[in-house]
Amino acid sequence: MISSKAFPMKGGDGPYSYTKNSYLQRACLDYIKVMINEAISQKLDIKHLSLISNTFRIADLGCSVGPNTFTSMNDIIEATELKYQTQGLSSKLPEFQVFFNDHISNDFNTLFTSLPPERRYFSAGVPGSFYIRLFPKASLHFVHSSFALHYLSRLPKEATDSNFHAWNKGNISYPSSPKEVVEAYASQFALDFESFLNARAEELVCGGMMVLIMTGIPDGTSRFQAIAAIYDILGYCLMDMAKMGLVSEAKVDSFNFPVYSPFCQEVKELIRRNRCFKVERFELVTRTRDVAVTDAGAVAKHGRAVTEEMIKQHFGSEIIDELYDRFCKKLQEFPQFLDAIYRIATQLFVVLKRQATD
Amino acid sequence: MISSKAFPMKGGDGPYSYTKNSYLQRACLDYIKVMINEAISQKLDIKHLSLISNTFRIADLGCSVGPNTFTSMNDIIEATELKYQTQGLSSKLPEFQVFFNDHISNDFNTLFTSLPPERRYFSAGVPGSFYIRLFPKASLHFVHSSFALHYLSRLPKEATDSNFHAWNKGNISYPSSPKEVVEAYASQFALDFESFLNARAEELVCGGMMVLIMTGIPDGTSRFQAIAAIYDILGYCLMDMAKMGLVSEAKVDSFNFPVYSPFCQEVKELIRRNRCFKVERFELVTRTRDVAVTDAGAVAKHGRAVTEEMIKQHFGSEIIDELYDRFCKKLQEFPQFLDAIYRIATQLFVVLKRQATD
Repeated sequence: MISSKAFPMKGGDGPYSYTKNSYLQRACLDYIKVMINEAISQKLDIKHLSLISNTFRIADLGCSVGPNTFTSMNDIIEATELKYQTQGLSSKLPEFQVFFNDHISNDFNTLFTSLPPERRYFSAGVPGSFYIRLFPKASLHFVHSSFALHYLSRLPKEATDSNFHAWNKGNISYPSSPKEVVEAYASQFALDFESFLNARAEELVCGGMMVLIMTGIPDGTSRFQAIAAIYDILGYCLMDMAKMGLVSEAKVDSFNFPVYSPFCQEVKELIRRNRCFKVERFELVTRTRDVAVTDAGAVAKHGRAVTEEMIKQHFGSEIIDELYDRFCKKLQEFPQFLDAIYRIATQLFVVLKRQATD
Repeated sequence: MISSKAFPMKGGDGPYSYTKNSYLQRACLDYIKVMINEAISQKLDIKHLSLISNTFRIADLGCSVGPNTFTSMNDIIEATELKYQTQGLSSKLPEFQVFFNDHISNDFNTLFTSLPPERRYFSAGVPGSFYIRLFPKASLHFVHSSFALHYLSRLPKEATDSNFHAWNKGNISYPSSPKEVVEAYASQFALDFESFLNARAEELVCGGMMVLIMTGIPDGTSRFQAIAAIYDILGYCLMDMAKMGLVSEAKVDSFNFPVYSPFCQEVKELIRRNRCFKVERFELVTRTRDVAVTDAGAVAKHGRAVTEEMIKQHFGSEIIDELYDRFCKKLQEFPQFLDAIYRIATQLFVVLKRQATD
């Protein structure tokens, strides 16, 4: 069993909460909704699925606290219902059960109180890391995971071990680190993604579908250009604060974000090696300018919702306001950072189907 | 759909939390464990159940925040596993999935963080009132509900309506109220319990088992003697405080506990009318003196864990400390109240099996 560290999104529904600051993900999801609809209408084998169960079980892995997860689940159910109707199977329409999964430290209380009252599904929250088994064998029909698989289950040892020759001193994410550290991040991602696929292969029924939306880098490009700009910019701010004595340099040196963006080829190869899934679609999606957010204040709030817990766990809460003020100013001063936020908008969209294995 | 009011147990794990103050229920459960074991070993048809599913799904309805729910779920799973072994069905041992249910306002975050690390089941939290459907059709194999069914889904209108001739002025629970109020409580219980049975009849597979542990009064005894003493004593304290001007008399007059203890005959009749369940066991359990708690301070803490949220919702939090100080003193001054706590220890233990209906 992998012992897995949790970095939940900011809970509650205050001004800096994930609930109120997840529209960047939302903007991307609007575009991806069309692709999920296509996957369901073209590839989901409901004739087979309706034979084996009267319940259609969906899991959203790494759902955070909403509202994006509610929209996604609703979209999936609508598309599935439509398919039942167009295939003349309305009389066999299943009941839907949705499992909202995230780390044990996720704010499930907020998630539950914000469940849409008019939902057409039975709901359940499932606490735990998705890098291990979360559900009984062959009990799920559809798995969805969006903006979650870039969180590693743990930091590679090499990224923090001061005895290791490649110690990542001064860098808080891997792209500009020594080669050994970059490789350690890649190895950790491979281990994690392998565990993820193994667990889901057990949990999905044969013919069940899995849609993964995750950060991904075009093959042949530079890791440095493509890595999530938010993390880099926060890193610069932390280093500024260390130079001014506002935070200890040793603390900054020992801090790393446990996030990784794989090249497309890495993901493809791990799916191939697992052998339990047929690839129905594999596509790098680039968000277009008209759905991106260009306002520094809004981007800063979004960055805070996603990263505040990670920062707090390492640095304590005293530096939070100062850090995110600086983060916002940095975005205003250097428009090229906002440009960088555009670049991270490449997302990998993967549709897999659980296939029979020997 | 019944709109249902929530009165969750005190969340978190502080000195007055339900987590730390639920040993009265626990003491009773130790005794009831034996009875659940008997029900499973003698009445659970695992040959049939193992044919229809590889997963054994258990729901604990009204689970609160632990730790009692974890003990109960563990006991049920151990007894079921033992039965698989003794019947030579070890190779067909299912995977277990446990659904922890309580109101949306229950503290699921505390529940999830206190899940036993070494559990042998997949876990999920299900928010919502158990007086409506919570699970897909025929998806559960075992339903457990303990110390929860005495909470009504709402107060009877007659208990608070000052225009009604039977207005419950001055009484905060029904036993000493006018006949019409008592009848209104009984009708509300009948409606609620009927909804409960209808929902579970849909959710349980044929052959599935339901164990209900609930407050119940021996037929032919007085309601007044048998009603939960904790509520009565709190009522006396509130009325004392009103007389001293520490809380408004009008507030006390308009306050009622939404709890009801049925006579055995009422429960039997509602089960008979529902027609979906075979009664495998129906028994009034009286807790023996050696497992009861006689320490006033401990009983006061227990009373606070169970009732604080209800009191707070009506009176605000200012009166809480004063009220429970008085509650504790009242228990110390009048040992007959502690005696009364013994009397409430009669619990109804009901084992039902979902049967095929025409």
